[in-house]
Amino acid sequence: MFKEIMENVKNQNPVIDNITNYVTVNDCANILLACGASPIMCDNPDEIEDIMNIASGLNINIGTISEMTVEAMFVGGKKSNDLGKPVVLDPVGAGASKLRTSLCNDLLDEVKISVIRGNASEIKTLAKGGGSTRGVDSSVEDTITEENLEDAVKFVKEFSKKTGAIIVITGAIDIVSNSERAFCIRNGHKMMSSITGTGCQLSALITAFASANKEKMLEAVATAVILMGVCGELSYKRLDETHGNSTYRNYIIDDIYNATYKTVEENAKYTII
Amino acid sequence: MFKEIMENVKNQNPVIDNITNYVTVNDCANILLACGASPIMCDNPDEIEDIMNIASGLNINIGTISEMTVEAMFVGGKKSNDLGKPVVLDPVGAGASKLRTSLCNDLLDEVKISVIRGNASEIKTLAKGGGSTRGVDSSVEDTITEENLEDAVKFVKEFSKKTGAIIVITGAIDIVSNSERAFCIRNGHKMMSSITGTGCQLSALITAFASANKEKMLEAVATAVILMGVCGELSYKRLDETHGNSTYRNYIIDDIYNATYKTVEENAKYTII
Amino acid sequence: MFKEIMENVKNQNPVIDNITNYVTVNDCANILLACGASPIMCDNPDEIEDIMNIASGLNINIGTISEMTVEAMFVGGKKSNDLGKPVVLDPVGAGASKLRTSLCNDLLDEVKISVIRGNASEIKTLAKGGGSTRGVDSSVEDTITEENLEDAVKFVKEFSKKTGAIIVITGAIDIVSNSERAFCIRNGHKMMSSITGTGCQLSALITAFASANKEKMLEAVATAVILMGVCGELSYKRLDETHGNSTYRNYIIDDIYNATYKTVEENAKYTII
Repeated sequence: MFKEIMENVKNQNPVIDNITNYVTVNDCANILLACGASPIMCDNPDEIEDIMNIASGLNINIGTISEMTVEAMFVGGKKSNDLGKPVVLDPVGAGASKLRTSLCNDLLDEVKISVIRGNASEIKTLAKGGGSTRGVDSSVEDTITEENLEDAVKFVKEFSKKTGAIIVITGAIDIVSNSERAFCIRNGHKMMSSITGTGCQLSALITAFASANKEKMLEAVATAVILMGVCGELSYKRLDETHGNSTYRNYIIDDIYNATYKTVEENAKYTII
Repeated sequence: MFKEIMENVKNQNPVIDNITNYVTVNDCANILLACGASPIMCDNPDEIEDIMNIASGLNINIGTISEMTVEAMFVGGKKSNDLGKPVVLDPVGAGASKLRTSLCNDLLDEVKISVIRGNASEIKTLAKGGGSTRGVDSSVEDTITEENLEDAVKFVKEFSKKTGAIIVITGAIDIVSNSERAFCIRNGHKMMSSITGTGCQLSALITAFASANKEKMLEAVATAVILMGVCGELSYKRLDETHGNSTYRNYIIDDIYNATYKTVEENAKYTII
Repeated sequence: MFKEIMENVKNQNPVIDNITNYVTVNDCANILLACGASPIMCDNPDEIEDIMNIASGLNINIGTISEMTVEAMFVGGKKSNDLGKPVVLDPVGAGASKLRTSLCNDLLDEVKISVIRGNASEIKTLAKGGGSTRGVDSSVEDTITEENLEDAVKFVKEFSKKTGAIIVITGAIDIVSNSERAFCIRNGHKMMSSITGTGCQLSALITAFASANKEKMLEAVATAVILMGVCGELSYKRLDETHGNSTYRNYIIDDIYNATYKTVEENAKYTII
């Protein structure tokens, strides 16, 4: 599946609008360019309808929020729905403040979301209306392991059925699931959590892959997650003892730039439940 | 000309205020430092007049806009005009939304702009009040080639005459022109379009060069464009097969940091029409 | 002292909230991760009280300011005070505009600040209600040298006594002082001023170190300053002739990531007055 999905991104060169936080926005733009997409970062409700006419998909990330950007999320989300363009939600820090939790709930009520990507804690917050989010990192008790994987998949499929969205939980094991089928992905490296915004970057990547593969969205989202994990592994291998999280950040984007479907085929580690 | 122009930047160390987008702002700050200028990023209308008393030039980039930053563009632009300090306009995505197009038109009406830098599509939007901007990349039909160069130069000179601004169109061939003389620059590498914000960075660089060389502004702007293109070429040559757009971004800023007038003299490729 | 202080940061993994500028925010997040802390960048007054319940410290940086972020500084600062969590103030560009100067004065009036870090010009502005700040760089006449060090320390101790805050002046010689004891630190490299935001990064680092070492705050802040300076030296030594300020930025964050207390012990250069 990787070949067709990745070629669709490179051939269609989808324009992706991102309403995203100002912390990791530059990396999101560069990773979109690296994978063959074209980023735009319009977060203004007064122009986002025009922009969604040009764009192929919308990435909503709540990492930093203001009155203006929140309004743009609803206006842009609804316009995307009208045009049949995918909307991805990254509920950064959901559960860490009432404002973030209620914003996510409102978005889920008013906008049809195609894909939700977060860590286990964030997704649990959205699914259960509670949680114990610790800043933007997943709480330790929410880590998905081989032991609790089956339960986690069941939970994710139920949440997908309830929302109609593809659900992505990232962590040591990543789950990409609709209501029927779950990709359990074992790529990636733990040092990726030492870089700010690998999650945000993945959500941007997912938006590009989903937008260029609307007929095979589950496979496309899984491919984006695998690609990010594979590049995280390959980049890690290229680090020497003088390197840290800053060089690692650059290498991952570089590896996304150079990755072909063969890179993914040779390194993908996943099962389907 | 390169020697004097580049030494003026390094010796005067001009403070450049940037009202710019939050996507590429860090790279803009670092490229200003790399060339010998001093960046400040004040975008607040309540303090921009104070800041323009300190600064030598103003870079207005409409990549991401809010009510506050738009107001700062007008307040800061008019103050710069009063003080005789150059104002550069980067009309990112003009044509992609009515908001951006009308903002640019209003800025051109109310502020004396010294230099406008964009891709062909953006500049055509400003000149003709229309266009087919595709996000922030130039539409394919707007690419400047050796075949249509003469027509493009004629168009640019007319637009310069109309606005009184130096016009810069960047692409495979860059044009830097006032109403009488056009530098046609053939430096740069196509991979530069895989990095977010090389255009934004160039606009920041242009502001520094123009501000430190007010008496030779056309030559100064041309030098900034040539310098960026030359560094794009030199950095590209230093890439190996593991490198992608992230390392390329770092290398270009590094090469700007290390470039001397000799680097530019030895590698400049331009004609004057 | 370095061993205990650095281990406290790595073991406690403190969550640090940053109300900071959008220019250098990504580097601040990555340097916090590099040192073992966990960044969050909430700058919204409607959620910052929730966030401060989770966070261990607050970093207030006035590099770019809007009505919303200014309000968040007061709400978040007061909440931090109520909870006994350290608040660090980075008065970027104080003196460059009336808005910045008066904002700093108001913050000092209404919020108990634990640490103030700036260049000599910014700190003088705060202490004396005047100054000649040139953008965000320290004016030349405000440089601290071996000749004027004694006077500077006296001034800093007085300002610390007046505010109750630890004062950090960074420059060729860094001073970290409370009302009684001053660390005079001679680490660092002048090329660090060619990177945007090394000061901002240091303020973030200081917040992490202070938050994980509340009982030894002066020593913790001094350790953060020494660590940054030592890494600036080590990174500089790793540069080759093709490298510039962009690679240098990456190397410094990498070196913070890899630094142990032994790195600091072996390279620290300071006296206590």
